[in-house]
Amino acid sequence: MSLTIKLTHFNLLTKTHNKNQNFKTPIYHTNKLSKSFFLGSTKTTRKMLGGHVVKIKSSLIEPDGGVVIDLVVKENEKDLKLLEAEKMVKIGLKKIDLEWVHVISEGWASPLKGFMRENEYLQSLHFNSLRIGNGSVVNMSLPIVLDIDDETKEKIGSDNDVALVGPDQTVVAILRSIEIYKHNKEERIARTWGTIAPGLPYVEEVITPAGNWLIGGDLEVLAPIKYNDGLDHYRLSPKQLREEFDRRQADAVFAFQLRNPVHNGHALLMNDTRKRLLDMGYKNPILLLHPLGGYTKADDVPLDVRMEQHSKVLEDGVLDPETTIVSIFPSPMHYAGPTEVQWHAKARINAGANFYIVGRDPAGMGHPTEKRDLYDPDHGKKVLSMAPGLEKLNILPFRVAAYDTVAKKMAFFDPSRAKDFLFISGTKMRTYARTGESPPDGFMCPGGWDVLVNYYASLQAEEATPAAVSA
Amino acid sequence: MSLTIKLTHFNLLTKTHNKNQNFKTPIYHTNKLSKSFFLGSTKTTRKMLGGHVVKIKSSLIEPDGGVVIDLVVKENEKDLKLLEAEKMVKIGLKKIDLEWVHVISEGWASPLKGFMRENEYLQSLHFNSLRIGNGSVVNMSLPIVLDIDDETKEKIGSDNDVALVGPDQTVVAILRSIEIYKHNKEERIARTWGTIAPGLPYVEEVITPAGNWLIGGDLEVLAPIKYNDGLDHYRLSPKQLREEFDRRQADAVFAFQLRNPVHNGHALLMNDTRKRLLDMGYKNPILLLHPLGGYTKADDVPLDVRMEQHSKVLEDGVLDPETTIVSIFPSPMHYAGPTEVQWHAKARINAGANFYIVGRDPAGMGHPTEKRDLYDPDHGKKVLSMAPGLEKLNILPFRVAAYDTVAKKMAFFDPSRAKDFLFISGTKMRTYARTGESPPDGFMCPGGWDVLVNYYASLQAEEATPAAVSA
Repeated sequence: MSLTIKLTHFNLLTKTHNKNQNFKTPIYHTNKLSKSFFLGSTKTTRKMLGGHVVKIKSSLIEPDGGVVIDLVVKENEKDLKLLEAEKMVKIGLKKIDLEWVHVISEGWASPLKGFMRENEYLQSLHFNSLRIGNGSVVNMSLPIVLDIDDETKEKIGSDNDVALVGPDQTVVAILRSIEIYKHNKEERIARTWGTIAPGLPYVEEVITPAGNWLIGGDLEVLAPIKYNDGLDHYRLSPKQLREEFDRRQADAVFAFQLRNPVHNGHALLMNDTRKRLLDMGYKNPILLLHPLGGYTKADDVPLDVRMEQHSKVLEDGVLDPETTIVSIFPSPMHYAGPTEVQWHAKARINAGANFYIVGRDPAGMGHPTEKRDLYDPDHGKKVLSMAPGLEKLNILPFRVAAYDTVAKKMAFFDPSRAKDFLFISGTKMRTYARTGESPPDGFMCPGGWDVLVNYYASLQAEEATPAAVSA
Repeated sequence: MSLTIKLTHFNLLTKTHNKNQNFKTPIYHTNKLSKSFFLGSTKTTRKMLGGHVVKIKSSLIEPDGGVVIDLVVKENEKDLKLLEAEKMVKIGLKKIDLEWVHVISEGWASPLKGFMRENEYLQSLHFNSLRIGNGSVVNMSLPIVLDIDDETKEKIGSDNDVALVGPDQTVVAILRSIEIYKHNKEERIARTWGTIAPGLPYVEEVITPAGNWLIGGDLEVLAPIKYNDGLDHYRLSPKQLREEFDRRQADAVFAFQLRNPVHNGHALLMNDTRKRLLDMGYKNPILLLHPLGGYTKADDVPLDVRMEQHSKVLEDGVLDPETTIVSIFPSPMHYAGPTEVQWHAKARINAGANFYIVGRDPAGMGHPTEKRDLYDPDHGKKVLSMAPGLEKLNILPFRVAAYDTVAKKMAFFDPSRAKDFLFISGTKMRTYARTGESPPDGFMCPGGWDVLVNYYASLQAEEATPAAVSA
């Protein structure tokens, strides 16, 4: 997909934001919310960015390790740190590395304070968890690591600290008290994905081309990571989310992780979850609709299109903006199924969620070389419900939703009249959108569906152009 | 190696046992010890085999789950159970399956009460540990599972229980309240070994030919598993070992897992460990010299030869029989490095050991397709020291021993005079023994070395015969 198309969608999105008055339901308040953050930034910056670890006062679920990590240096220390960094060996960050710096710096991986050293890496790989100072265990299922090549290792020699440089050549962070250890790619892949079959997206994009060494250490980030893609206002940190949940006096927060457009089946279960929480006696359950914003594989719907689609779902009243927060989860996607779903859940604890919705085959995909799902579709929820460090999180397993051809709407699947139900997979949905065919009435709100149709139309237009040139 | 050779060695061993009066140091007392068990069996059987779970009274380290599991049925219930089993669908056990029945039935894997159901399997695979009823965590790094093929699954249908039948067609056990679930071999291998490269011995022997289903359930074993190979008296159960440690009033038990002949480097560190424990204030530390007795790969030295070699080490006074117990650990070998060493340690907790010696590359081997160690030689001890459920076990990392060419003995490696030291690997040792070349003086006691030389000589004699035929 070209930059032009991305901008088109961004423009659509921006336009949408400027036409609030036209909407049935006021557009999602992230603008308001982020405005309040930005307006309040002078006053709150010091407190918010004032140290590496800031104690959060909140009645919300306790973050892993007790505090949400914040690794952005104080404004008044920045210049000095920058001078210091200039003298250090520089390590170039790739786009996905930068996404991980973002993730770590805001405390999604709390209590992790930097790229993993070997002890953390090994615990993550073997136990999907880390034992911390007080003897308790936090979940940590994905190795969050930074690779370097032989030449860079040589250059670093016995230095203690290195500077991390973004793709645009600016110094992004310092990595302190570094430890360099071997990057056994085969073992990392096998233990993380449960296969080493060729064709795993994150492996091909990140691990195969990576260096033979990993470098761990404590991170000091010189400035908050921004993408300047028109979506930064959606990128609330765990601390900002916690503050917003507090402001709304949420007594329950339920998170919904997704990397796909929201259809009415998703909406059904989010609304149903809210109802169940009210039935349980909670007064004000808040939904965190939390699309993943980092690296995704090429055939997934890109972030800007998804954000626009999610906006429409709120505009169309499918989800209630008063009890929903839409925000971007900055992590890259591994497609590592039961291993990754733990990371998705753990990160949301740090953002204040005490309920986590999990469905069929979370973070899964087709096996890259065999005609089957890579993971047993039930393993994700089973593993999640037993995972070390997630005991304090309430896991809400999905009831499967499908299109009820009698009621003509998405409904919870009723096995007693199985033949009335139509399962519309992500692939099927994309095929509909790509071919311009309408999905059954009630599958997705019309505004949201239009976003997808437009996206695939623009993609086809783009694909047609180079074909003409090469013909 | 043919049965003939095995018998030769068994004969040698038996002969050794009958000539106690010739030894410098009285031969290892396992005979005495096992005699006392066998003599005492009428009196103690009921108490010992009297239930599925028997509370052990001991000042020793608490077994996982608080009790050492014993799954052998009461003598007076056996006939009824056998009648019942005859009506059940029969599942044929392979030799290694029977070794696992042995392991589970005696409580090495406590609190595991049978072959794993899916919840246990998934926890083992993903977390190397199991959460138990009281919320605490026990280590369990290897999936202990039983496979069945499609046809057997079909035959079982919706039955609740099945009978397990040994290679000799006798009913060995009942598996109750069974659960059948998919055997995803690729995922199992990748997560257990950290590779799926062809040539992993346990994989080729057990997993590749296995069925597509796993069957879990509670085990009821009809009679203690015996091998009738002349070595059963060495096979003390965790309960028997605990009773022996109590009888000796051990205030510390340190376990040494091995699958190789004992050389003087091993002995040095075992004796040094004892010294360190005495220095720490323990009055009576007992060494559990605990060779692995289940499946090993073809080029490892077979059990009977190793047991004979270990006897010689005690005869020759290299280890002190008064403070050493030699016993066989019945588990099969996975060669799964850092994952397996946890199993080796965990099982010894159940046998009463509170100290565990760990060296370079435990349970490791060469990569089957690349010219390198399969595992980082330091990962075993690192992973072990961080493993969930092993917190109560004291891990004693090896100091590396090598042959000191100046002192002409095995000694702890001194990096300040590295050039004086000679490292003799297992491969090198086998080459010496195979070629009839003597290792440096002081590498191994002469009696133990002779056992190896004889073994390889008989092996070569055997290899020569078919070569002549095929020529």
